Amino acid sequence: MTTRDSAHAFMPYPDVPVTHAASGPLAGLSFAVKDLFDVAGYPTSGGQPFVLAMSGVKTETAPTVQRLLDAGARFAGKTVTDELAFSMNGQNAHFGSPINGAAPDRISGGSSSGSASAVSNGLCDFALGSDTGGSVRAPANHCGLVGLRPTHGRVSLRGALDLAPSFDTCGWFARDVATFARVAEVLLRTDPEPLPERGVRLLAPTDVWGLLAPEVLEAQAGPRARIEAALGAAAPVEAVLDGFDAMYWAFRYLQGREAWRTDGALLERFAPPLGPGVADRFAWARSVADEQVTKATAFRARFRAHMTALLGSDGVLILPTMPDVAPLISAGEAGLEDYRNRATRMLCIAGLAGLPQISLPLGSRLGAPLGISLLGPAGSDRSLVRLAEAL
Amino acid sequence: MTTRDSAHAFMPYPDVPVTHAASGPLAGLSFAVKDLFDVAGYPTSGGQPFVLAMSGVKTETAPTVQRLLDAGARFAGKTVTDELAFSMNGQNAHFGSPINGAAPDRISGGSSSGSASAVSNGLCDFALGSDTGGSVRAPANHCGLVGLRPTHGRVSLRGALDLAPSFDTCGWFARDVATFARVAEVLLRTDPEPLPERGVRLLAPTDVWGLLAPEVLEAQAGPRARIEAALGAAAPVEAVLDGFDAMYWAFRYLQGREAWRTDGALLERFAPPLGPGVADRFAWARSVADEQVTKATAFRARFRAHMTALLGSDGVLILPTMPDVAPLISAGEAGLEDYRNRATRMLCIAGLAGLPQISLPLGSRLGAPLGISLLGPAGSDRSLVRLAEAL
Repeated sequence: MTTRDSAHAFMPYPDVPVTHAASGPLAGLSFAVKDLFDVAGYPTSGGQPFVLAMSGVKTETAPTVQRLLDAGARFAGKTVTDELAFSMNGQNAHFGSPINGAAPDRISGGSSSGSASAVSNGLCDFALGSDTGGSVRAPANHCGLVGLRPTHGRVSLRGALDLAPSFDTCGWFARDVATFARVAEVLLRTDPEPLPERGVRLLAPTDVWGLLAPEVLEAQAGPRARIEAALGAAAPVEAVLDGFDAMYWAFRYLQGREAWRTDGALLERFAPPLGPGVADRFAWARSVADEQVTKATAFRARFRAHMTALLGSDGVLILPTMPDVAPLISAGEAGLEDYRNRATRMLCIAGLAGLPQISLPLGSRLGAPLGISLLGPAGSDRSLVRLAEAL
Repeated sequence: MTTRDSAHAFMPYPDVPVTHAASGPLAGLSFAVKDLFDVAGYPTSGGQPFVLAMSGVKTETAPTVQRLLDAGARFAGKTVTDELAFSMNGQNAHFGSPINGAAPDRISGGSSSGSASAVSNGLCDFALGSDTGGSVRAPANHCGLVGLRPTHGRVSLRGALDLAPSFDTCGWFARDVATFARVAEVLLRTDPEPLPERGVRLLAPTDVWGLLAPEVLEAQAGPRARIEAALGAAAPVEAVLDGFDAMYWAFRYLQGREAWRTDGALLERFAPPLGPGVADRFAWARSVADEQVTKATAFRARFRAHMTALLGSDGVLILPTMPDVAPLISAGEAGLEDYRNRATRMLCIAGLAGLPQISLPLGSRLGAPLGISLLGPAGSDRSLVRLAEAL
C-alpha cells in the first residue's frame, strides 16, 4: 500500500502479498488489521515510531489473523492505531488521524482508529481491532459500525502488542450485522455459555442511562425501543458498585499499572517523544501506587461477582455505548479529554468485569451515528451477535 | 542497537551485523551513519515515520558507506536525523533530540544531529552526515567537532535520501583533525584543484564578520589569530553580493523549491504529521513561485562567478561557522528560528557557491564550543583538511 488511502486508515507499508485460502466461510471478504497484530512480511508499529524501528519484519502471523486468512478472507493491509493503543481519540501524532467515514468532521475514535476508518470508508469489509478500555466500542459508536469487545480471553491476542493484558481483548468491526456474524462464526464458533434461544432477560442499568444528557437520551429512545420490541421490555437494575468514581478509578489504576508494566521499560530506555495526551497518560500511569492497585484489584473482584450475579446465565444489559456521538475534531484536546472521562464510566463496566459487549449502530444525532450496546454474561459472545442478527 | 545509547544519538534498529574489511587505513575506527544513507540490513527513515514505514529493509549499502567499510572502519549504527533533514536544530518530533556531548544544555544542531551527538559523546570515532544548508557545519560548531561540507558532488550521495540535490553534500565529523584526516584520505583522495602547498591567500570577508555580536567577535579573536599566525594575515574582502538578503533569499527559494520537489509528493499523498518547524518550512517551500526560482537561479550563477573570481586557485576565506555557540535548548522554537535565520546568512555562501568549507572547533564561549571555518575553491577539500592539520 505505497499510495495512502484517502481515509488515512492504512499504514503506508510496502505491499507484501499475504496468502489466504481460496475458499472458506469468509471467501470474498477483505479485512484490515490494526497495526498491533503481527502479519508475516510486515513490521508491527503499535503506532509508535520507535516500536516500528525496533520491529524488523515479522516472520509469523498472529493466530487470529491466520484464522481469518484460512477462512478465505483477503488481507487488505495494516491500519493506523493510536500511539501504543493508549488513546480513545483516533489521533496519532506520528501517523495521523484516520478519517471517520460516517462523520468526517468528527474523530474516528480509537485506539482501533484505522480499522474503523477503513471499514466505515468502505475500503474493506471488516477489520480487526483490540479493546482495552473501549478501543473497539468507541470507534464503532463513532463510525456507525457493528463492533464487539469479546469476553476477556475469548479471541486470541497472541502475536499482538499488549497494552494492559488483564483488559486487552481482540475485537472487530463490520458495516452490517450479516458480515459481522460471518466473522463471528470463524472467530467465536460456539459459545461455552450461550444465552437461552428464547427468553433473554433484558436489563436496563438505570444508573448508566442516567449519565446521558436529555438530548442523547432522546436520540437513544428509538434504538432502545427497537431492541426492547425484539427482546422484551428491560427491567431496571443498578450496574454500578460503590458509585461511578469507584469504578472509574479502579479501572484507571489497574489499566495504568499494567500499561506502565507493558511500556514503561521502552519509555524509560528510549524516551521516545509521545503525542501529548499519550505522554500525559503514561506519566500518570507511572505514578499509580501499589496501594491504589491493591484496592482496585479488590474492587474488581467484587464488581465481577456483582455482575455475574446480576446477569446470571440469561441476563443482557442494554446500555448506551458512549455518552454521545463522536466529538468534533475541532473539540481540541481538553474537549476530548472531558468526553473520554465520561465515556470511561460506561466503558469500564465490560472492561472490569471481563464481559462481552456488542455495539450496534442503531441511532444517530446531529447527523452522526450513535451506538447502543448489549452486554452479556462471560462466554455469551456469539449469542450477543445472534441477538443483533435477530433485530 | 536495541538498548538506546544515553545520548539518544542512534536509531533503535535491531542490531544487524555489517561486514568491514579486516585491515585498511581506517582499521580500528568505528563510525556512525546518518539515517539518510542506506545500509544493507537496515531501513532508512530520514527521521520520518512514514518514510520508515515505507522503507522496508535495504539490500544495498550506499557507496560512500561501503568505501568506509572497505577501508576497515567498523559500522556502529544509524543515527537520528532531523525530520526529512529539513531543520538545523537537532530536534526530531518523532525520534527525539540527540544530546550535545560538548554542551548538554544546548541543542546539538542538525540535521546531522545524531551523527554529531554520537561523535561528541565518544560513542564512535567519526560519523557521516549530510549538509544542504548547514547540516554538518551547524552541529560541528555546536558540538565542538571538526566537520566538512565538501565541494558539491565531491563525495557520493548515491543511496542517500535527497533534500535539495543541487545543495546536498556528504560530509563527516570527528573529534580531532588527525582522525578527520584519515577519513579524508579515504573519501577525498587527491584534490582535483589542490591549494598551493605554501602561500595560501587568506581572505577575511568583512561583511560576514560584521554580522557577529561584539562578544562573539571577541571569542573568535583567538581562533582567528591562531589561523592567521599559521597562514598569514587575512586580507579584507567582501563575500556578499547584492546584500545578505539577496543571498539569503536566493538560497531559501532554491532550497525550498528543491525540497518540495523531493518531498512534496510524499507530503501531499500521505499527509504525515510533521514536527512544527518542519511543517512550517515545507508549507513555505510549497509556496515558492517560479519567478522567485528564476531570479534566484540567476543570482546563484552570478554569485558563483563572484566567488570563483574572489578565490582564484589560492584564496581561502576565514569566517565564523555560525553566529554564536549553540542556542540553549530552552530557547524554544522562536529563539531557534531567529538563530537559524542569522546562521543561514553565513552558511549559504558555501551552499550557493558549491564550495568546500571546513569548521574547526577552535573557540569557545559561555563554556560551549565555537567553530571557525575555512572555505576554499571548488575541489580544494583535501587541501583544507591539510591546512587544519598544519595548525
